[in-house]
Amino acid sequence: MISVDEAVERITRAFAPLPSERVPLESAAGRVLAADVTGRFDHPPAPMSAMDGYAVRASDAQRGATLAVIGDAPAGRPFAGSLEQGQAVRIFTGGVVPNGADAVVIQEDTLSIDGGVIVREAPSAGENIRRQGLDFRSGETLLQRGRRLTARDLALLAAADFADAEVTRKPCVALFATGDELSRPGAPRKGGGIVASSIYAIGSLVRSWGGDSRDLGILPDRPEAFATLPETTRGADLVITLGGASVGEHDLVQSALGPHGFVLDFWKIAMRPGKPLIFGRLRETPLMGFPGNPVSAMVCAILFLVPALCAMLGTPYSAPVAKARLASSLKANGKRQDYIRAKLSTRDGALFAEPFTLQDSSMQKVFAAADGLIVRAVDAPAVNAGDPVDVLLLDRF
Amino acid sequence: MISVDEAVERITRAFAPLPSERVPLESAAGRVLAADVTGRFDHPPAPMSAMDGYAVRASDAQRGATLAVIGDAPAGRPFAGSLEQGQAVRIFTGGVVPNGADAVVIQEDTLSIDGGVIVREAPSAGENIRRQGLDFRSGETLLQRGRRLTARDLALLAAADFADAEVTRKPCVALFATGDELSRPGAPRKGGGIVASSIYAIGSLVRSWGGDSRDLGILPDRPEAFATLPETTRGADLVITLGGASVGEHDLVQSALGPHGFVLDFWKIAMRPGKPLIFGRLRETPLMGFPGNPVSAMVCAILFLVPALCAMLGTPYSAPVAKARLASSLKANGKRQDYIRAKLSTRDGALFAEPFTLQDSSMQKVFAAADGLIVRAVDAPAVNAGDPVDVLLLDRF
Repeated sequence: MISVDEAVERITRAFAPLPSERVPLESAAGRVLAADVTGRFDHPPAPMSAMDGYAVRASDAQRGATLAVIGDAPAGRPFAGSLEQGQAVRIFTGGVVPNGADAVVIQEDTLSIDGGVIVREAPSAGENIRRQGLDFRSGETLLQRGRRLTARDLALLAAADFADAEVTRKPCVALFATGDELSRPGAPRKGGGIVASSIYAIGSLVRSWGGDSRDLGILPDRPEAFATLPETTRGADLVITLGGASVGEHDLVQSALGPHGFVLDFWKIAMRPGKPLIFGRLRETPLMGFPGNPVSAMVCAILFLVPALCAMLGTPYSAPVAKARLASSLKANGKRQDYIRAKLSTRDGALFAEPFTLQDSSMQKVFAAADGLIVRAVDAPAVNAGDPVDVLLLDRF
Repeated sequence: MISVDEAVERITRAFAPLPSERVPLESAAGRVLAADVTGRFDHPPAPMSAMDGYAVRASDAQRGATLAVIGDAPAGRPFAGSLEQGQAVRIFTGGVVPNGADAVVIQEDTLSIDGGVIVREAPSAGENIRRQGLDFRSGETLLQRGRRLTARDLALLAAADFADAEVTRKPCVALFATGDELSRPGAPRKGGGIVASSIYAIGSLVRSWGGDSRDLGILPDRPEAFATLPETTRGADLVITLGGASVGEHDLVQSALGPHGFVLDFWKIAMRPGKPLIFGRLRETPLMGFPGNPVSAMVCAILFLVPALCAMLGTPYSAPVAKARLASSLKANGKRQDYIRAKLSTRDGALFAEPFTLQDSSMQKVFAAADGLIVRAVDAPAVNAGDPVDVLLLDRF
């Protein structure tokens, strides 16, 4: 058995960023930038008014001065001429400040008269003007490679006149479940009556973290069923098996895949739930074998699949772990790192974690209701209510 | 001017949950449940083995006892008969515990002999058995109406044999920008050279919060251009205008839409950035008019559009606000609630917020780089480094 940290490290090291592609801004949200984005012009491209009012020369615009209004400069229609002494140009928010002007008097501080304007509050030089390049400069790095694009980033890219973005290709993850006991939801249930469920959760996790999922369905527990896999998984960047990873004689992923080019890197991780994780390669393609138990499979996906996706996307990842206070006591831990399902709450600004009474890894309702996983290190001593613990936050999963 | 809280309240009250639709599990992630989901059978449907080993009668299985192995019960193939005194059935994780058995001895605690098994550690009654209904019971509420479905929820729904979910229809949000100065990214830039950017950010925000966006493009600053809107916005649940919301004579949304059936509810909110927000109805359809400034527009969208989307989806919403310590001082605030762009960091488990030096609302690079908005209430006094402040977290936006 290897530790969780070592497994994460070995898995992450096995993946490199995928090639890039250009996508239009409309579909770039959540995608990962494959290259730095650099400004190609100053923004704003010229000095702009921040307010509605009058563009003036500050040296002219003393309190009580009357200025001749020689034109206007709404947003999008710059004033063509130049502003001389004693003159003003009516200007609007986003309008280009005319040549010769160095301040904007806001409308509320003026009195409009026929053909002119009286200044009621003198502006200082530069007032209410957004200087050229205030937002960003030509040649400046706007967004860095590896960034997962937010809604605000899309606005910045558009403002910088980019209609598309160079992003890492989506990792394609092929998924299949094994197990004679499994049926699809809505299909007739088999002996034991268990419905395949992990494939939906893990497919969804892949998509929400920026990958594409390919659902290869349920394979029966017979080695012959695996013969088509090198074909059906072609083009996938990662293959995931669900079930058939543990010790028993009905656990066949390793033995069934061997003849098709599977080479094991490691299996068995000192963790609970989820010990029997397989990692290796099916010919050229990395393969993760997750436990059949849906809670175990999902914990493995959170711990190992998400970092692998991020490595393929070329974006940094660190598990979302917060400090919390324990709401009840926990026994000393054994030789496996434990992930205890818990409800989180906030009291007086502090985070509290209340473990569920029952922690059996077959309990999907408890897992769905959990807000976090209390992380218990190997051989961690007993802890009491009020003690600090690390919690893996589940709201992104 | 009305307060931010009053505006949120009036806006949220104007929306009700939309009708529901059924979607397959594969596309149900992030959707909002329109009805409670109730279990239709016990899960597991029968007592199941939690381990690989032997199903036995605990009263028989004393340490050193030899039991006759009369069959096996792998997952998916229940043992057909019943277990009598002195007998055992080979069983695997997820296998149905045979009638007559009340415990499972794990494989490691047994010694296999020809036709039988020697017990090396006596189990107690119930050991290693997941009782029928341990996960959930028939008739039990599994997930509640209004819940935004997570990956784990999908696994629970599948386990409960649901192939699809009854979710609220996606709100359709029609968006358009106004402004003669605006061009699309990649298109020839106009006078002033400003590229439309809010429409991409707000469209992305709509989609990431569970809506569909309809991009109606850029309208010129002429009332005639608005004549087609009742037609192009047909079927939308909400119309959003970007720009043309403020006071100046070139701001025309209110006047241009009046003849087409626009009725104002309120406008102007005591906030910065984003004061000139319009809220009303275009005939039957709610309409929000956001400022043309992209940062102001996006702050308005975060504060007012996201709660409106959640109201249409029938899911609760509260703004993600955390307590942080201020990393530098801030002046006393005026008559508008201020949203100050800040970088967040964690030191010794505490959250720190460092305001950007420049806060001009035209600065999109700063806004994209911000992790949070420090919320400064109307008339808030000056605060110093180390003082506690409320921060609206931006990582979901």
